[in-house]
Amino acid sequence: MIANTPDPPYYVVIFSSIRTEITENYSETSTMMLELAKTQNGYLGVESARDELGLTVSYWKDIESIKKWKQHTDHLIAQHRGRNEWYKTYKIRIALVESDYEFHQDQL
Amino acid sequence: MIANTPDPPYYVVIFSSIRTEITENYSETSTMMLELAKTQNGYLGVESARDELGLTVSYWKDIESIKKWKQHTDHLIAQHRGRNEWYKTYKIRIALVESDYEFHQDQL
Repeated sequence: MIANTPDPPYYVVIFSSIRTEITENYSETSTMMLELAKTQNGYLGVESARDELGLTVSYWKDIESIKKWKQHTDHLIAQHRGRNEWYKTYKIRIALVESDYEFHQDQL
Repeated sequence: MIANTPDPPYYVVIFSSIRTEITENYSETSTMMLELAKTQNGYLGVESARDELGLTVSYWKDIESIKKWKQHTDHLIAQHRGRNEWYKTYKIRIALVESDYEFHQDQL
């Protein structure tokens, strides 16, 4: 689902990744991290999709919330396994959302 | 593939969408728009993936490039069809990328 974020400004973390062929514990950990992220201060929502490339876009109130989540112990352990096992390569971009707009077919 | 963007700052357009069941001309138009976007001034790269939710993340030099691309005639026609036929709902967020980092397994 499309995340129901508040009016800008807020922050976004764009996580773009290419997976390895190692699947052990990947989907469990991924689900656990999404659940844990939801409980963090400043969390506003998440959207993700994967084809050959995976995109996970998470929304946050401010940079401080993003830094705290990055340093969360359970998340650090998952990041470590991610680099050693699950991801061939990834790129993380942190950006300030300045504007947004949306369309719903029902409103036509 | 992960887009090979320059060092920040630069802009990102996050296009999150849910499709209708109408598929006519969708993938051709989508491919054409991606090809056309690549030829625009200020275009820096694109990443996309789709499950139930579709995410297309395009990177741009500045806001001016994004505005020009939004107003490109062929793109306006595609946007019109998108709202009438292909998308149930979408949300577009425009954000300023402030920092990035990446990981490559080969570098270990």
